[in-house]
Amino acid sequence: MKTIDVCLSPDLMHLYPVSDRVVVVVDILRATSCMVTALAHGVKSIRPFANLEECRAMKAQEYFTAGERNGEKVDGFDFGNSPFEYMNENLRGQKIAFTTTNGTQAIAKSQGAKQIIIGSFLNLSAVVEYLKNGTDNVLVVCAAWKGKVNLEDTLFAGALVERLKDHIKPDCDAPLAAQRLYNLAKKDLVDFLKDSSHVKRLNRLHIHKDIAFCVTPDQYSIVPKLVDGELIA
Amino acid sequence: MKTIDVCLSPDLMHLYPVSDRVVVVVDILRATSCMVTALAHGVKSIRPFANLEECRAMKAQEYFTAGERNGEKVDGFDFGNSPFEYMNENLRGQKIAFTTTNGTQAIAKSQGAKQIIIGSFLNLSAVVEYLKNGTDNVLVVCAAWKGKVNLEDTLFAGALVERLKDHIKPDCDAPLAAQRLYNLAKKDLVDFLKDSSHVKRLNRLHIHKDIAFCVTPDQYSIVPKLVDGELIA
Repeated sequence: MKTIDVCLSPDLMHLYPVSDRVVVVVDILRATSCMVTALAHGVKSIRPFANLEECRAMKAQEYFTAGERNGEKVDGFDFGNSPFEYMNENLRGQKIAFTTTNGTQAIAKSQGAKQIIIGSFLNLSAVVEYLKNGTDNVLVVCAAWKGKVNLEDTLFAGALVERLKDHIKPDCDAPLAAQRLYNLAKKDLVDFLKDSSHVKRLNRLHIHKDIAFCVTPDQYSIVPKLVDGELIA
Repeated sequence: MKTIDVCLSPDLMHLYPVSDRVVVVVDILRATSCMVTALAHGVKSIRPFANLEECRAMKAQEYFTAGERNGEKVDGFDFGNSPFEYMNENLRGQKIAFTTTNGTQAIAKSQGAKQIIIGSFLNLSAVVEYLKNGTDNVLVVCAAWKGKVNLEDTLFAGALVERLKDHIKPDCDAPLAAQRLYNLAKKDLVDFLKDSSHVKRLNRLHIHKDIAFCVTPDQYSIVPKLVDGELIA
């Protein structure tokens, strides 16, 4: 049986060989939720950047620039990090250069993986089906917050472990912990997350609506993949 | 109110400043459970070593040598890593040099902390009282398994967060996750841990008895502290 492991922080990536695994990068609040939303709404591609200035420079190459630092939109960028910004007809067929505090860093640290895909609650069932039908072992990479383990990404990892339990077996304790937390939380994810550090951080920025949306399962059926440095649907 | 944070793996220690914190090192299976048992049974002091050969060399200085690598006793050492070995009248008043795969590494990575103490289920309530009465913020450092997050250390961290919740507030998501897992597990810790990677590893070594003992709360009332490189009761 294939295996699934969970890397709870990008700062633990050195423990996980990835060259033979499919990596699912997850940053529920809000990078990977935005990416899935944008691509589902017809954006042509998203190029993720760890570095802010490299991202900004893509403007010269007809990319829209998007993202945040510390939860807030970057000065001079076209778009921030709310999924609602990407439900935008004007973005159809366009290319976006994207950088965030955690999510695009996690993608950068996953380089070298056999395959990199993007997960969020918004495309949960699509990711489950994709992994179930694939042949490779799975590593879920949680974007966390500046290296510190967070609840929302852990819960999504747990959702994958739970939904795949008859097909892919947990490789270590992190997937078991994530699975148990998810089963505890799944009836009301928003309530479970109300004390979490990032929800409190976002509440200070008045984006309750984003939080509720980002933990809503199965709004979209795409599985974004990284191909030649660009995420495509 | 003071704060409590949880470092789920020694490989995340760079994220946590410790110079103003009391660090609780925990390696439930089995290093810190052994240390507590030994000191409660009258051992004079325990000098922890990250390096195996440095530990071995202490034999020349009238130390007993003790510890394990990959769960098994080190060749030529006097004692292994089962708490039952330390319920030994012949060790009363003696000094031990101790090295393990994970626990003594976690102590080494906690150097620079304002204070380092040793936690286990065996001295849970004593540690709770000690932290409650102290003035410093708390960091629980889980020894994990070669850097990978494990369930048993996470559960102990969660027990501290839960027991201290009216006195010390969680600083981030890791303590919240640990607390919730502990509350889910506390009715039957052995059962909760039965699928965990280290329990499976130890079961292969036929040490079921150790596991049951190591998750039994409040067998001892000491709080071992690191003073001048030696752990004392």
